Amino acid sequence: MTRAADVLGDGSLARALFAPRAVALIGASSDPGKTTARPLRYLRKHGFEGRVFPIHPTAATVGGTTAYPDLASVPEPVDHAFILLAAPLVPAAVRACAEAGVRCVTVLSDGFAETGPEGLARQRALVETARAHGVRLLGPNSIGVVDTDGFACSANAALEMPELPRAGYGVISQSGSMIGALLSQGAARGIGFSSLVSVGNECDLSVGEIGELMLADPRCTAILLFLEAIRDRAALARFARAAEAAGKPVLACKLGRSTAGQALAATHTGALSGDDRSAEALFRHLGIARVNMLETLYEAPPLFFGSGRPEGGRVAVVTTTGGGGALVVDALASNGLDIAAVPATVRARLERQGVSVGQSGLIDLTLAGTGPEVVRDVLDLLMAAEGVDAVAMVIGSSAQFRPDLAVAPLHGLAESPKPLAIHLVPAAERSRAMLSAEGLAVFRTAESCAEGLRARLQRRAPGDVPATPAEGLAERVAAEVAGAAGAALDEPTSRRICDLLGIEGPPGRCVRTPDEARAAFAELGGAAVLKIVSPDIPHKSDSGGILLGIDTPEAAARGVAQLLQTQRAAHPGADLRGVLIQKMARGVGEALIGFRRDPQSGPFVMLGAGGVLAEVMDDIAIRVAPVDLDTAREMIAEVRMFRAFAGYRGAPKGDLEAVARAVVSLSRLARCPEVAEAEINPFLIGAEGAGGLALDALVVAAERP
Amino acid sequence: MTRAADVLGDGSLARALFAPRAVALIGASSDPGKTTARPLRYLRKHGFEGRVFPIHPTAATVGGTTAYPDLASVPEPVDHAFILLAAPLVPAAVRACAEAGVRCVTVLSDGFAETGPEGLARQRALVETARAHGVRLLGPNSIGVVDTDGFACSANAALEMPELPRAGYGVISQSGSMIGALLSQGAARGIGFSSLVSVGNECDLSVGEIGELMLADPRCTAILLFLEAIRDRAALARFARAAEAAGKPVLACKLGRSTAGQALAATHTGALSGDDRSAEALFRHLGIARVNMLETLYEAPPLFFGSGRPEGGRVAVVTTTGGGGALVVDALASNGLDIAAVPATVRARLERQGVSVGQSGLIDLTLAGTGPEVVRDVLDLLMAAEGVDAVAMVIGSSAQFRPDLAVAPLHGLAESPKPLAIHLVPAAERSRAMLSAEGLAVFRTAESCAEGLRARLQRRAPGDVPATPAEGLAERVAAEVAGAAGAALDEPTSRRICDLLGIEGPPGRCVRTPDEARAAFAELGGAAVLKIVSPDIPHKSDSGGILLGIDTPEAAARGVAQLLQTQRAAHPGADLRGVLIQKMARGVGEALIGFRRDPQSGPFVMLGAGGVLAEVMDDIAIRVAPVDLDTAREMIAEVRMFRAFAGYRGAPKGDLEAVARAVVSLSRLARCPEVAEAEINPFLIGAEGAGGLALDALVVAAERP
Repeated sequence: MTRAADVLGDGSLARALFAPRAVALIGASSDPGKTTARPLRYLRKHGFEGRVFPIHPTAATVGGTTAYPDLASVPEPVDHAFILLAAPLVPAAVRACAEAGVRCVTVLSDGFAETGPEGLARQRALVETARAHGVRLLGPNSIGVVDTDGFACSANAALEMPELPRAGYGVISQSGSMIGALLSQGAARGIGFSSLVSVGNECDLSVGEIGELMLADPRCTAILLFLEAIRDRAALARFARAAEAAGKPVLACKLGRSTAGQALAATHTGALSGDDRSAEALFRHLGIARVNMLETLYEAPPLFFGSGRPEGGRVAVVTTTGGGGALVVDALASNGLDIAAVPATVRARLERQGVSVGQSGLIDLTLAGTGPEVVRDVLDLLMAAEGVDAVAMVIGSSAQFRPDLAVAPLHGLAESPKPLAIHLVPAAERSRAMLSAEGLAVFRTAESCAEGLRARLQRRAPGDVPATPAEGLAERVAAEVAGAAGAALDEPTSRRICDLLGIEGPPGRCVRTPDEARAAFAELGGAAVLKIVSPDIPHKSDSGGILLGIDTPEAAARGVAQLLQTQRAAHPGADLRGVLIQKMARGVGEALIGFRRDPQSGPFVMLGAGGVLAEVMDDIAIRVAPVDLDTAREMIAEVRMFRAFAGYRGAPKGDLEAVARAVVSLSRLARCPEVAEAEINPFLIGAEGAGGLALDALVVAAERP
Repeated sequence: MTRAADVLGDGSLARALFAPRAVALIGASSDPGKTTARPLRYLRKHGFEGRVFPIHPTAATVGGTTAYPDLASVPEPVDHAFILLAAPLVPAAVRACAEAGVRCVTVLSDGFAETGPEGLARQRALVETARAHGVRLLGPNSIGVVDTDGFACSANAALEMPELPRAGYGVISQSGSMIGALLSQGAARGIGFSSLVSVGNECDLSVGEIGELMLADPRCTAILLFLEAIRDRAALARFARAAEAAGKPVLACKLGRSTAGQALAATHTGALSGDDRSAEALFRHLGIARVNMLETLYEAPPLFFGSGRPEGGRVAVVTTTGGGGALVVDALASNGLDIAAVPATVRARLERQGVSVGQSGLIDLTLAGTGPEVVRDVLDLLMAAEGVDAVAMVIGSSAQFRPDLAVAPLHGLAESPKPLAIHLVPAAERSRAMLSAEGLAVFRTAESCAEGLRARLQRRAPGDVPATPAEGLAERVAAEVAGAAGAALDEPTSRRICDLLGIEGPPGRCVRTPDEARAAFAELGGAAVLKIVSPDIPHKSDSGGILLGIDTPEAAARGVAQLLQTQRAAHPGADLRGVLIQKMARGVGEALIGFRRDPQSGPFVMLGAGGVLAEVMDDIAIRVAPVDLDTAREMIAEVRMFRAFAGYRGAPKGDLEAVARAVVSLSRLARCPEVAEAEINPFLIGAEGAGGLALDALVVAAERP
């Protein structure tokens, strides 16, 4: 194993962060019961070979180590300081670090941005001080850094463990306590870590930047993220692309899934997408494999090693326990994966054993008399077979008492060309640790096994931004939006922006009087719809601003007069710009297409069925914008309600290609910084081949581009 | 601990099954490498105190024990025999058992019903022999019986373990290998079992009957089922009601969730309900708590002890790790549970600690300085607080290294009045085993913790069959169905059955000529619909048998002629009985209401949104029929698409009470054995207060009632 320090440049940030020569513990306590006494204890316990300087205003020693009243008194250069003081004392301590030339400062203290505006101001001041002096900050509210090669500089109680599980995965966590959980589970499971960093409030050093530092660490084979929010999208994106280039997988467990459900109760597009959904789309875009179960986060990485590019989601399930194998099949199906057809080669091999296997379903080896030869043969054949994207191997009681039968033959399969997920059903801890140490992906539950395979098979390389030739688009959109900063545009303006994007709408025009209405109706030549035009009434249908089924010139005239009157009464002071008269159009269904910039995660395009059902059913697809046609088609396939337009049970087919084109077009707003969000609702889906129309469009200008 | 044998009546079936005085191993091998050598080895290893008689045609001893050439030669009465022979030899062995007066025979051998018709016939013959002689059969294809008090009569390799985890849960499994998985995990987790029975093909002794035997066992505190299918509904129902009376919870992990998804692709009501959904409804009806994760099955039972009747799904989450607590919150939300508001009493207690907690969200004790007093105080307050139905306690690193802080104060809470679920985030195996041994529910993953609480809080006592006064209903329905055994009835007949049930339809009548059509149209007085009437065309809309928007007498006349002609051409030989002319009706939406008898699990009623979306979205509710109005309302609340009719975002409200009444009415077909299935599709939902109409109804007669 290469020691981190050996490959880190002298004076580099990575060196100061993971393997400093000298560390100062500012505010270390001599009271062993206190949290602030822990870092010194853990540094010693886990063999830190550099120098440690406790800083204490009065004590001559702390925990038996010579202490200094301040950093200035420390007789040699310090490259890493860990500040353990109360929040009000931190700014002065950071300044002292800067003056002493400390490269990297970790701040344990809480009481900053996480507490509200006052704390946020305090945190900003901290960052300013650090930036002014070229000091890098980790935290505040960071529980510290653990490098398993000997720098256990953390207050995490999990470091009481006798020995740290070394080498393997880098961990970056926004939750300090999860570092402890991972160390503990890793130690029990034979899963090791290179370094684990608690980023706390991430005021300076971000997840992405630390990730890039870890990529340079030869001990580190994969990087695991435990996140609450995405704070620095650009750094995360750089890191994700660098990880792809380095061939090191990045997995993320992110909290806040449930807020997506809550956000659905809200009424606007912003809430419809939800922060968690934006994050999900960003992960997908960046090739970061998201998992929900904590166990999957540390069990799944070996599935991502190797160069194979699975084509689909077809998993062959081999088992030595019928019940256990069936549990995995159920879990795979719940994760949207398919059970691979049993290849003819495998059937032939089992026939040699006198066992006849069907084309589909479980490959149950119990009838073949589970033994090392048949196990290995079947796995080798599956690794070579077409139509199989990954293999799940489920082992029953023999894993515990007869590892020679089905566990031993897995030796060497860490190098296999397809992902291999192993689920041991009994509490076979020795086999589990042995297989993990071999670099195989071993799962404790059927659920994490299936989730890990799902994450692996659905993962794509970080997405390239599609080339969207759009000469002058941004400028022309900017001209339409001009002067509306932060406000919703009226429908004719929104309509013109759709025209610029190439999204067709029904014929129509804006009128202001009954006479104009009569003339316009005659021109349209058919039934029409009337809609009030006002930037102050964005939700027209909710407030009676729409009249349907206008079928005579007189009805048009009456309707215009009525709308102007009722809307004036309902919205006193609103800027009523007239009434839009549009030709009624019929289709086979409706879609909702939205665009939004998430302050954390950037521009997104989203797609759902129209009407209220997209929200009620939580049935939307979302991607980082812009998207290309293939991605738009993928989104359509994801929206379950659109299956009703795919010729299901004899229902008329809808022109889903027109939906895909509109999604691509709307997503080009990503290039128009003047636009904050946009929504086409409904987008009318015509019958197959008949195209589609944006019946209503709403564009909201950005506060400031 | 009470030994099972002490309380079992002499000569009782339970005695023979779990604690026989003498057991014969028919076909036991002396080759220790063979599966058939295991039962003798395991019986000895785990201290069987009765007599063991290996039966072997030639050997004088087997595994060092005196062997006998046949049962007749055994010098004393045998109460349990374990047949380890190949399938063709089993019938003779069972006969020999019967002749020797053996009470209970377990058959390990496979090659019976699970292999196809020939095997099924062989199995039936076995049952006949047994019944004729009063012998009870377990299996075939059973891996045996394990009673942890000393009768390890099984071929399961997990019995290699040095000692069996004793007392606690009874296990009944249709998968033999899962017995081993449970024993192994239980031993590792401090979770014990009273007895574990592999029922195999369940040809005689069924899950329900064995369950009833286990209920009488004082060691047994809960019963865990691992099922593939429901084979004997009546016995299962008796058992479930007896378990409720005995206060012993029944939990089930059932395979085949994913087939429900597959079945949705099919086109008829039967497939729509799916076998797994029927089973789910039956479990709910019987108060059997279903879980998906195997871990939850053995982790969750303590949640069900105690007499509390939770009112809702509000879970208070207390944590010593922010990240770990948030993972549980996400998992609870994914399980449809709510996070309880923090009670004022708890807030006051934490303020004494100098910590201010909001009304909602996690109760994070880290800021309060996690210690035994505050942990216990907070839990006691939550147990007493209103608005909290259950408590989840999440413990971080301290569980491993400082159990005095947050683990020790849980002592005694097994008796608490509300369910308490404990999730230890690190690998704190000692604390885990200690808490389990105390009878607390300890979960290894956030997911099983949340699933366990969901199963507990959603569980209801076994349902009473609602009293549905229906004088003469069955007779009158039988008269309509008469002669149609196994066939679909035509629409007018189906309509009359709906009338008998009290389900309203639109006015209309059956006509055979254009003249009759003109007259009927005039009588209806408004736009009409025409539908072909034929028992041979059940899916009229799929085959052009419906004409909509008939708005003149002439159109009615033309339409009738056209339908008779086109349907004659499309369905040569079909019995065309005329055309139904019905008044067109408009509503705000549609529902699909179905009734079905599942061969395994009995009569069900199901409800979904109308059209193809119920199937596409897998959004249906299903219950054991008949149901009362409250249950029907619960079903409506379960169908997510109906939220669109509850006044969502200003959409018109629908008369969901009319839907509930129709569900109750249709479910009364449970009392009409002549009806196999029925479907109202669509049921038109009128605006609020306007009722609803069964626009189309299809009833299928039973093959034989």
